[in-house]
Amino acid sequence: MAQDRRPAGRSERRAAGERKPREERWAQLLEVATQMFYEKGYDGASLQDIADRLGMLKGSLYYYIQSKEDLLFEVISEVHREGFAVVSSASQGPGDPLDRLERTIRAHVEHACRNLVPTAVFLHELESLPTARREEILGSGHAYQGVFRDLVAEAQRDGLARPDVDPRVAGLSILGSTNWVYRWFRADGPSTPEEIGVQLAAMAVHGVATAEVLAARGAVVGA
Amino acid sequence: MAQDRRPAGRSERRAAGERKPREERWAQLLEVATQMFYEKGYDGASLQDIADRLGMLKGSLYYYIQSKEDLLFEVISEVHREGFAVVSSASQGPGDPLDRLERTIRAHVEHACRNLVPTAVFLHELESLPTARREEILGSGHAYQGVFRDLVAEAQRDGLARPDVDPRVAGLSILGSTNWVYRWFRADGPSTPEEIGVQLAAMAVHGVATAEVLAARGAVVGA
Repeated sequence: MAQDRRPAGRSERRAAGERKPREERWAQLLEVATQMFYEKGYDGASLQDIADRLGMLKGSLYYYIQSKEDLLFEVISEVHREGFAVVSSASQGPGDPLDRLERTIRAHVEHACRNLVPTAVFLHELESLPTARREEILGSGHAYQGVFRDLVAEAQRDGLARPDVDPRVAGLSILGSTNWVYRWFRADGPSTPEEIGVQLAAMAVHGVATAEVLAARGAVVGA
Repeated sequence: MAQDRRPAGRSERRAAGERKPREERWAQLLEVATQMFYEKGYDGASLQDIADRLGMLKGSLYYYIQSKEDLLFEVISEVHREGFAVVSSASQGPGDPLDRLERTIRAHVEHACRNLVPTAVFLHELESLPTARREEILGSGHAYQGVFRDLVAEAQRDGLARPDVDPRVAGLSILGSTNWVYRWFRADGPSTPEEIGVQLAAMAVHGVATAEVLAARGAVVGA
């Protein structure tokens, strides 16, 4: 597994003397690979391109990975792991399911806006991985979309979401609405990541909540 | 322009005798190219692959197009033209802006679910076209997302949508929520295109409407 080929710990790194520490090289490799996959697509970017941009010999890349596919796997795993950590952490903690849904959407949108390049590679190149490796990343239960679906289902059980909402479709709708920022967000555009997060979260919460709940919450949602 | 290279009219076609009519060949070429771009990606699919699948000589393709890029341009233009016709037609006609928004979303979702392959090629490969050709297709005003944005803005002017909604972001949210079906809809899945359309439209209308309007509309929306 590529995991085993990752750089060794700090003590070994120090022993390497003046050579660039391996962990740092690995982080650089992931960063450059992400950028190259973004610019040229997975098919278009070669290990040679990546080595050239790093100022390394192509052969040296094989210390870290066995193939270009390994590199895509590592890039996509990392993006997914980070994004999922953001989303699952936000979905827990205080508040009713709609509060947590709102917080989770805002966190997800801010994270995606601030990580547009890795997010785009994840969304565009996931299909370039073989099914087994894709499933290894996504998890059997579609964990990412599951966070949104489960919050909607929980809100429904608590009487906070309309009974006619289908939590699965609502979760996918929210995932689409929020992931889509990777196509249109611009750092120099008219809205900040926070403003977009507030808008998308308010639309989703209003989109599923009962009229009674919205009336009771008043101006708090989407204020 | 590729337009000029399209097959000639019916009378010329008849004169061609036993050869396959050109219009039919052109439609087949677009269909096969769409499928190949979907399966292998634009970079991965060659004109040779496309000719092989059509049972044509590669050289014969140059009767219709000058380059693979021309072919992608034609494929993406057609998908966009069709989808935009569906959406703009649904956005007009009777009803207040929220009725029209609901109808437009349903039409868009049903169309996308029933045209998953062309929709995926459009969304994945648009960036493979040079900027000028991309803009030629999309139009300067981002016409597609503009339909949703303008309906939300109109609803807001009429007091039907919440004043804190940003119509631009709302339009993009709806576009993301609805386009996303290309990634998850399955013909053998638990929901029909119509059911998904109803769900996504109801979420969007509730997402932007004022509490008063929703109360007045009662069970009509999303029923």
